[in-house]
Amino acid sequence: MGYVKLKIKDVAEKAGVSVTTVSRVLNGEKYVKDELKAKVQRVIDDLGYSPSHIARSLVRQKTNLIGIIVPDLTSSFYSTILSSIEEAVSLNQYNLLVCNINEDTDKEYKYLNIFKEMRVEGIIIMHEKLNDEIRQFINKLDIPVIFSSVCPEDQKFVSVIIDDYSAAYDTTNYLIGLGHERIAFIGGDLRDVTSGKNRYFGYLKALTDNGIPVVEDYIRFGNYKTQSGYMLMKEMLASEPRPTAVFAVSDDMAVGAMNCIHDHKLNVPDDISIIGFDGSQLTELVRPQLSSMEQPIHEMGKTTVYSLLDLIMDKPSAPKEDIILQHHLVIRDSCKARS
Amino acid sequence: MGYVKLKIKDVAEKAGVSVTTVSRVLNGEKYVKDELKAKVQRVIDDLGYSPSHIARSLVRQKTNLIGIIVPDLTSSFYSTILSSIEEAVSLNQYNLLVCNINEDTDKEYKYLNIFKEMRVEGIIIMHEKLNDEIRQFINKLDIPVIFSSVCPEDQKFVSVIIDDYSAAYDTTNYLIGLGHERIAFIGGDLRDVTSGKNRYFGYLKALTDNGIPVVEDYIRFGNYKTQSGYMLMKEMLASEPRPTAVFAVSDDMAVGAMNCIHDHKLNVPDDISIIGFDGSQLTELVRPQLSSMEQPIHEMGKTTVYSLLDLIMDKPSAPKEDIILQHHLVIRDSCKARS
Repeated sequence: MGYVKLKIKDVAEKAGVSVTTVSRVLNGEKYVKDELKAKVQRVIDDLGYSPSHIARSLVRQKTNLIGIIVPDLTSSFYSTILSSIEEAVSLNQYNLLVCNINEDTDKEYKYLNIFKEMRVEGIIIMHEKLNDEIRQFINKLDIPVIFSSVCPEDQKFVSVIIDDYSAAYDTTNYLIGLGHERIAFIGGDLRDVTSGKNRYFGYLKALTDNGIPVVEDYIRFGNYKTQSGYMLMKEMLASEPRPTAVFAVSDDMAVGAMNCIHDHKLNVPDDISIIGFDGSQLTELVRPQLSSMEQPIHEMGKTTVYSLLDLIMDKPSAPKEDIILQHHLVIRDSCKARS
Repeated sequence: MGYVKLKIKDVAEKAGVSVTTVSRVLNGEKYVKDELKAKVQRVIDDLGYSPSHIARSLVRQKTNLIGIIVPDLTSSFYSTILSSIEEAVSLNQYNLLVCNINEDTDKEYKYLNIFKEMRVEGIIIMHEKLNDEIRQFINKLDIPVIFSSVCPEDQKFVSVIIDDYSAAYDTTNYLIGLGHERIAFIGGDLRDVTSGKNRYFGYLKALTDNGIPVVEDYIRFGNYKTQSGYMLMKEMLASEPRPTAVFAVSDDMAVGAMNCIHDHKLNVPDDISIIGFDGSQLTELVRPQLSSMEQPIHEMGKTTVYSLLDLIMDKPSAPKEDIILQHHLVIRDSCKARS
């Protein structure tokens, strides 16, 4: 079905309206009467095509370019997944334009505009704090968009993610299974649905399910970077009694916390166990090596690219819903059972 | 003088030839007689302008885009300097398109072509293994190019670098000053002039100047990545007697070597001292913190961008020769005097 090229004319004919009207409905323009809009929409639905699907087939051009928006290139997670994405993109004779926005949504809007002007064939977004301007822009965009590792609320595009809530739940449960009860949590930004909110609620649920009280002093929120993990750990080391285990929602923050513990002449894992999240290259680069709840980074990068290519080529295999990959606990040397 | 706009017509008039002929000379086309070529060139020289200078003023367009070619985004050096470059680019209302080539020159050629088509206003290259095709392409290119942290041989563009030879000499001398004589060297690719050859020769010269014999067994060459530092260190730990100090020409390789020593139940710096090179964010992220011969990464990134912008705008302050920044030895916890 994906191979049948539906023309805007076919929709117009079947709905008994002009091509311009269909085009206006597709573009979400306001000066179309509701009645007319419903009629056109019904035809589109009957034919089983999404508006973007039709619109796209009208303007598609081969540039072999894919644009990607990355929130922070110094993050070990993003630099690791970017390698996998680039590998898959190259294998398919596409070229990748990387735009780093450093969490700046103004930049994101600019770069999306540049991508549009350059007629990239597809866009990968790895950032989830979308403002209204950006939402509107990508919703109107005539280019396939896919989200990777994030899944912002209220948007119509496919995301390639893990189940962050369950992953965080499993991580906390692992520490509880080791006998820990004073489990500190170094979280992300709660405005980030995937990496902030879902991981936080997974942690809370595991504590509650095990009858462990939630201690406010053991909960901090950072910006995913090592320095922030270091500073937040420093605050928590002042707690009485101090935590016996720490769950940080990024490997970078976990390493920051680990360094802070080391600099305070305490030992990981003898005095405090630490577990990270992501499975970036950093986990094997530090000593002790960092246990981590791993996203299947390589698979995630590959799946993102192949799904986007399917969307670009309107293949029947193109994903219609979010793709949820499996998370894995990888135990290295940074956690220990409580004696 | 940089503000006077020289027209191709002025050159044609003064040389008594057609505009087409001047254009052909500027573009290095072959069907212009040598005699004519010399005549045009003389006029250009008299007027004190470089051909690219003239050609550029004819085609300049404002896209506010700068393209950058990076050899490897997973390297801590490149991800660190990229942050500084992006900061400076943004401050000047430009946008940066990052292309990662993973040491693949085919990709570099493709991306340079894309940059050209997209009319980027300037190009930053951080890679020094240029093949003939790329050399020819950038020499003919009508867009300012600047090299950052590298300085490939036989090319006409400005580089922003440190004196890698002296920096490596000073690094080796520092270890010698601590009483070490069995100093291992983990080098880069000798085809890389800056980071491979120059750093290697600086090491050799320091040994020779101090009457220390060069031991082949203590010299290895890697690919700048942690894993390569790890593997090469493993080989050298088998040497009898083993080295008492190691100089690695990237922080990543130094951390790899440090981990290898740790995994062999030896201590850094008690058993073996290690020093890295670059001054990336990794130096402060590992324990013990890594001493390193630092490039002024932030200054290097900033200088690269501001010099390129001067070139783009034909400012009198635009650099005409390589800019050599100062290297600095930063002593942390990974080196110790030999007792």
